[in-house]
Amino acid sequence: MKKHNFSAGPSVLPKEVIEDASKAVINLNNNNLSLLEISHRSKDFISIMDEACSLAIELTGLKNNGYKAIFLQGGASLQFLMVAYNFLKAKAGYINTGTWSEKAIKEAKLFGEVIEIASSKDQNFNYIPKEIKIVDKYDYIHLTTNNTIFGTQFHNFPDTNSSLIADMSSDIFSRVIDYSKFDLFYAGAQKNTGPAGTTLVIVKESLLSEINKNIPSMLSYKVHIDKESMFNTPPVFPIYTAMLNLRWIKKNGGIQNIENKNREKANLIYNEIDNNSKFIGFVEKDDRSFMNVTFNLIDSEEKDIFDKICEENNVVGINGHRSVGGYRASIYNAMTLESVEVLVDCMKKFEKL
Amino acid sequence: MKKHNFSAGPSVLPKEVIEDASKAVINLNNNNLSLLEISHRSKDFISIMDEACSLAIELTGLKNNGYKAIFLQGGASLQFLMVAYNFLKAKAGYINTGTWSEKAIKEAKLFGEVIEIASSKDQNFNYIPKEIKIVDKYDYIHLTTNNTIFGTQFHNFPDTNSSLIADMSSDIFSRVIDYSKFDLFYAGAQKNTGPAGTTLVIVKESLLSEINKNIPSMLSYKVHIDKESMFNTPPVFPIYTAMLNLRWIKKNGGIQNIENKNREKANLIYNEIDNNSKFIGFVEKDDRSFMNVTFNLIDSEEKDIFDKICEENNVVGINGHRSVGGYRASIYNAMTLESVEVLVDCMKKFEKL
Repeated sequence: MKKHNFSAGPSVLPKEVIEDASKAVINLNNNNLSLLEISHRSKDFISIMDEACSLAIELTGLKNNGYKAIFLQGGASLQFLMVAYNFLKAKAGYINTGTWSEKAIKEAKLFGEVIEIASSKDQNFNYIPKEIKIVDKYDYIHLTTNNTIFGTQFHNFPDTNSSLIADMSSDIFSRVIDYSKFDLFYAGAQKNTGPAGTTLVIVKESLLSEINKNIPSMLSYKVHIDKESMFNTPPVFPIYTAMLNLRWIKKNGGIQNIENKNREKANLIYNEIDNNSKFIGFVEKDDRSFMNVTFNLIDSEEKDIFDKICEENNVVGINGHRSVGGYRASIYNAMTLESVEVLVDCMKKFEKL
Repeated sequence: MKKHNFSAGPSVLPKEVIEDASKAVINLNNNNLSLLEISHRSKDFISIMDEACSLAIELTGLKNNGYKAIFLQGGASLQFLMVAYNFLKAKAGYINTGTWSEKAIKEAKLFGEVIEIASSKDQNFNYIPKEIKIVDKYDYIHLTTNNTIFGTQFHNFPDTNSSLIADMSSDIFSRVIDYSKFDLFYAGAQKNTGPAGTTLVIVKESLLSEINKNIPSMLSYKVHIDKESMFNTPPVFPIYTAMLNLRWIKKNGGIQNIENKNREKANLIYNEIDNNSKFIGFVEKDDRSFMNVTFNLIDSEEKDIFDKICEENNVVGINGHRSVGGYRASIYNAMTLESVEVLVDCMKKFEKL
């Protein structure tokens, strides 16, 4: 029986990606060698890496725009540190939309002055700060495009003369935005890019000329770009599977088509939340995430009843983050409309009880 | 037709490990969920992580010895940096046995004084420095137990009152040594631990009390140990496959039995090198590696002929590292005696031509 997996990440991937990844573990490209045992310097793997990087640039519309894509390790958490290590000289501006922004701020403070130029902490991060005026000159402005825990998402980005850097871990490749507004953006793979274990970084090459520090090799964007993600042995399986997933996005009409489907799924649940007398949304309507739909029961005493309905219908992974509670339905690119319909059906059944 | 894969890493893994890893990508533990799409906070994954860490401690004979095992990202290259960031206060001693040691030294120099207490550079690293006298007090002594590129291996370790730290990327779990001589050792997984994408670190907990610096979270051993390798999303697939591989080692009699087999394989090739008029070993006999057997043709003009014999017999991955040339047969734990016999047979055929 198929499970409907609303996990926040690692999360659902397209069925064909999972099947092809499984096959490659046994035999890659009919070579009679497992993907796991080929050299990362082999032609087969170099071509995988090249394709993954090219697809990342192509899908974000950055071809011929002076950007480079690299696949690293360490997740967004290592990027919190690398961004500051590479680019923080005097002071940087951070927009605080909750947990992930706060972690990025914490690491950056080890390397220079950090100014919180906007924050939604006053309302437990249930909205996105708007009309942010950035007057000072900062080494860079950092923001988190989508907050998986609270279920908020930037739908417009602030204008700034400083470099703009973003953590896009949970919504990269999910919607059409002007990616060229950003000088650097990164994403832990385990939502819309691929399985856990690799991190995509896309960086405008001109930004690198601003680096004048002595940076340890593994933390240096320059080193990784010069070595084309092969400074040391890359995480072969996660990158291969990310490449398959990016191929899947392209085959399915690219980001525009993916966005249309994501909107359809999100609207279906948000409409149900708004019309169902048993639920209430967590986030201000304008700032709702199309990736992570957070909601609460009006009567939290009824949790066991709703949970049982979900369980009976094979709906899994919808508990809210431990720091927020309630429910969270993560509906990343690979989540099918059919699964969302099953969840909405559970909500309807619950209301009718 | 089965290939005999002598690749230096990523390298051969046991057939059953590859098959089980492939199955889990489709369906883990008959849950109807892929290993790739479960939460790393799920019971299933926590139990995988626990088992992987326990097996690493058990196999190295360190149970109840005050050691902790963690699985990180970034390969040995990130460890070069983390070791120095965490433990280098005044000066550290490094033993230089070639490329990997040199890379470790380079990163450490950003954090304090580095003394090269011994080196085999004078003979292009074809031996292991011996009778090293360590009189000064160092924050730690660092060495590389096995050099994959030159094919050298420490068979005895220096005595020191300083903490001993080792890069064991290419020979951990391959032989019985007194692992408790080391205060910290690490290994990029892609040789004897598992597939590329995770790094095992085993550390004596008492060593952590010596850390008094403010260290970025992702570079802090303390943070990763406190969070039991879950400070951020771990590389799920590489860790799962490493766990399967450690189970395989245990099932096959543990490290002692693995060592016996590794010696048999190594002796077979080294005997052939020594008795075959067409080849010469690269390394001084006492310091030969049981993992990476390096050798050259007496007459390098005959390379095409030997390469053709290898190709016809499905022997792959035996070209030497680009910095050394010649040949390198990597015969890690999962390499079968049968495959080694095929290679030796190629060498014999070549001599008889």
